[in-house]
Amino acid sequence: MLCEQLTVKKRLISTNYNLKRIITVMTKDGVQGVVEEVDQAPSKKGLKKQQKEAEKAAKKAEKQAKLSADQQSTDDDDFAKDRYGVPPMVQSQQKLDRGLVRVQELTPEKAGQLIWVRARIHTSRAKGKQCFLVLRQQQFNVQALVAVGERASKQMVKFAANINKESIVDVEAVVKKVEQTIESCSQQDVELHIERIFVISQAEPRLPLQLEDCVRPEGEGDEDGRATVNQDTRLDNRVIDLRTTTSQAIFRLQSGVCQLFRDTLTNKGFVEIQTPKIISAASEGGANVFTVSYFKTSAYLAQSPQLYKQMCICADFDKVFCVGPVFRAEDSNTHRHLTEFVGLDIELAFNYHYHEVIESITDTMVQIFKGLRDKFQTEIQTVGKQYPSEPFKFLEPTLRLEYSEGVAMLREAGVEMGDEEDLSTPNEKLLGRLVKEKYDTDFYVLDKYPLAVRPFYTMPDPNDKKYSNSYDMFMRGEEILSGAQRIHDAQLLTERAMHHNIDLEKIKSYIDSFRYGAPPHGGGGIGLERVCMLYLGLHNVRQTSMFPRDPKRLTP
Amino acid sequence: MLCEQLTVKKRLISTNYNLKRIITVMTKDGVQGVVEEVDQAPSKKGLKKQQKEAEKAAKKAEKQAKLSADQQSTDDDDFAKDRYGVPPMVQSQQKLDRGLVRVQELTPEKAGQLIWVRARIHTSRAKGKQCFLVLRQQQFNVQALVAVGERASKQMVKFAANINKESIVDVEAVVKKVEQTIESCSQQDVELHIERIFVISQAEPRLPLQLEDCVRPEGEGDEDGRATVNQDTRLDNRVIDLRTTTSQAIFRLQSGVCQLFRDTLTNKGFVEIQTPKIISAASEGGANVFTVSYFKTSAYLAQSPQLYKQMCICADFDKVFCVGPVFRAEDSNTHRHLTEFVGLDIELAFNYHYHEVIESITDTMVQIFKGLRDKFQTEIQTVGKQYPSEPFKFLEPTLRLEYSEGVAMLREAGVEMGDEEDLSTPNEKLLGRLVKEKYDTDFYVLDKYPLAVRPFYTMPDPNDKKYSNSYDMFMRGEEILSGAQRIHDAQLLTERAMHHNIDLEKIKSYIDSFRYGAPPHGGGGIGLERVCMLYLGLHNVRQTSMFPRDPKRLTP
Repeated sequence: MLCEQLTVKKRLISTNYNLKRIITVMTKDGVQGVVEEVDQAPSKKGLKKQQKEAEKAAKKAEKQAKLSADQQSTDDDDFAKDRYGVPPMVQSQQKLDRGLVRVQELTPEKAGQLIWVRARIHTSRAKGKQCFLVLRQQQFNVQALVAVGERASKQMVKFAANINKESIVDVEAVVKKVEQTIESCSQQDVELHIERIFVISQAEPRLPLQLEDCVRPEGEGDEDGRATVNQDTRLDNRVIDLRTTTSQAIFRLQSGVCQLFRDTLTNKGFVEIQTPKIISAASEGGANVFTVSYFKTSAYLAQSPQLYKQMCICADFDKVFCVGPVFRAEDSNTHRHLTEFVGLDIELAFNYHYHEVIESITDTMVQIFKGLRDKFQTEIQTVGKQYPSEPFKFLEPTLRLEYSEGVAMLREAGVEMGDEEDLSTPNEKLLGRLVKEKYDTDFYVLDKYPLAVRPFYTMPDPNDKKYSNSYDMFMRGEEILSGAQRIHDAQLLTERAMHHNIDLEKIKSYIDSFRYGAPPHGGGGIGLERVCMLYLGLHNVRQTSMFPRDPKRLTP
Repeated sequence: MLCEQLTVKKRLISTNYNLKRIITVMTKDGVQGVVEEVDQAPSKKGLKKQQKEAEKAAKKAEKQAKLSADQQSTDDDDFAKDRYGVPPMVQSQQKLDRGLVRVQELTPEKAGQLIWVRARIHTSRAKGKQCFLVLRQQQFNVQALVAVGERASKQMVKFAANINKESIVDVEAVVKKVEQTIESCSQQDVELHIERIFVISQAEPRLPLQLEDCVRPEGEGDEDGRATVNQDTRLDNRVIDLRTTTSQAIFRLQSGVCQLFRDTLTNKGFVEIQTPKIISAASEGGANVFTVSYFKTSAYLAQSPQLYKQMCICADFDKVFCVGPVFRAEDSNTHRHLTEFVGLDIELAFNYHYHEVIESITDTMVQIFKGLRDKFQTEIQTVGKQYPSEPFKFLEPTLRLEYSEGVAMLREAGVEMGDEEDLSTPNEKLLGRLVKEKYDTDFYVLDKYPLAVRPFYTMPDPNDKKYSNSYDMFMRGEEILSGAQRIHDAQLLTERAMHHNIDLEKIKSYIDSFRYGAPPHGGGGIGLERVCMLYLGLHNVRQTSMFPRDPKRLTP
């Protein structure tokens, strides 16, 4: 194994082939590429600054090309020439028996150790005979230093200083405890003294956006002329935008929401199901549905898995959930609508009253909130640095208000609205504020919606035909879930579908599902991106969708 | 609460309204409906039998209508009239403080207790003054008895005997230990002596298929003239087919596969991601892709989340997985192709060699196999009753063969094929058998596929240009995963795309993802339905897809 290790080390030193490769990249994509990319950057504010940076970058690239050429010619004089360079692309040439330490593990306990780290060049700053680098790995970073001395030559320091930001490097370094806390890094008590540095993947010299601009709190850039990045630029360059501490935190938390949702339900005895997304008929009347060409016929994309969840209940699965994409062909260009989003769906049979369903769902939400609070505090605080917000509040048991109570509260606040009128978005938000003032909670259920504003399969209230056994749930005054007791009787379902002028032929297989014995049941669908947005107090659902889709955006 | 309970009990007794409702159902949908439904039943073998059954059912329905009418007229003479009937539809009228016991909890420890159970009428058999019912709840069932006596009248026994199979009932009953084991039920040591019985949801008198026919082992029906049900009939009536013990077991196991997959990866530090299914360009050359109309333009359904997984790796998520639908517009009508299936996708950065990726994936598979073996033995055995198969075998560590070794084994067995030729389906299966004979495993990896048969983004083998750093994984001789080290260098990726004649403009944003530093990485995509099918030794992927989609099937 040692023998193998040595062989590999030899292969890793810089060769003429590799040096030529850097130069080529620089000449071909570097200087020319920069000016073109500045023209594409849509952020007006930062344009001047970016132009200036571009010129700087161009100069730097020129310099680097020159330096690399210099290095090539002086290779023979360089005592450290085997200690840096650009090795061949990792193509799985060898199995190298070398452990890599994670940046977050770099603590004073490791002081004095010689270790290998793979990380990105976050920033670099040359200063006489030394070069300071910040090495980044996800949300963690550490200061590193290459200084002319026994282990590093002048040429090696220059090489390090000229590596483009965002490039990935392997460094061998000694961990040193520092006297003064390094405020700007996540690893504040140590720095790395680099003894070897090799470029694993070279970034282009000019980035389409700067990570530090992406995490600057809104408004802060305005005051001192520093740039912030607008949302379209971020989304157009999502691969870089997702590297920021804020994005890393948001999507780790999102992964946590899914896990908490499923674990809670699995513990409650729910079964996970997979429902088809391509369906033969537009189930809920046909509006807002995407059409797919399907061999010689047409099909549609499912607007929700609800009908399939219900079939599973009729098929005795008792309690089911599913996590998957849902599609809405709505031309809504708002902060909270997407054409494709992730639905966290629940459906369950109940015994006597649909409040059993509400309790099951609200308890699941509460478990998610607690899990996030207890296990994702770092992520919540990281996001809070860029987007400050009040901590999310919830009650146990969850507050449940009837629709009529909500309407009464709104009327008391001066809103004019009818009993059977649906809540407008501004009224939803206002009610959220009123509820927060009165009950001090960011999460509540509004129960017993007017029958007229709900889908045909909603169970009418047995005591008052104006209302229904249906509910919405809200976080920070915005709807995150819509649900109801469903009609489980084919005859009543047929009547209600006819009342809604729905073509019975198109929903035949749905209605037929209830002909062979169906338990009373209910459920709801939660929008994952909305839950994450509202929990974190963000203001646009595109921030919590990795690759958002809206009427105007289909890329990346 | 007691007061509430009493009120409810009063409401639950049979009323004239409800009796009329049964009669209506019988006259309107029963007798007439039967003949029509027989015509639709596509199973030729069972047609005669079904006709006969239909006649029987028609007679039974007539009888039931008469009986119900009789009951109405004799209500006043019936001392037990409050103990049975059809209460109003459960519309959440009341919160009833009544616990329901699960059928699987009915054990001798409960002997002597008076309990409530909600279950389906699985079978019913009247015999003089008593009626034997089998009550079913998912994969569990129990024998129950209504007998004329202190608690039940003649009318009540008749009522019970006439409830249609598959109806859902609430029964109050005393749990009795039995002397002789009841072989035909899952609860073999107890039976229920029914004191009250109410119909919660009435099934239509004629079922489109019989559950006992659905679980009959293939071939067994042929011998003694009993029916088995063909696959299309099952799928057309999936809501009933899914109620069988076999289906319940298959989909509970499938839910388990997803959970084991995610839990294993989460423990390994993977992050779950959500990738878009609507995409702007057909990524892998444009073949086999479904087109979606997207407002004023066109879009496509993603054939895999691979490009997005890779972007996440370039965005520093390091190790990611996702579970979601993938779409293939292939006109393949085989036992193992679906146009929509569930992909379990993995992608991770590695340090030096893509075998790190293979090990991560094979270990995940092994954890799944172990989890199924240890936690889903009941489900495996239940499926095995209908579809017998050898227990699934695997090795630790997983067997990895090189493609050239596989070709050599095939040649030794008489197959003629070239070094760079792809494996045909029959050859795949043959190789599976050869591997099983030689190594006694149903799971193995075939590594280093010829470059020519893999997608453009596959990393070439650094030592032999004919091969690539790519692999497939097989279960019982059929492919369940395809994966590779991906090219992480924009320049090489461009060259390979051009070699494959791919329009560079269409994959620009994909290639650009690798321009700003990208770690070496690899991954693969697993087909959930295939894993379940092959683990259980089934022979059609439609058995492990709840609502399968193929070129000819879009419903239910």
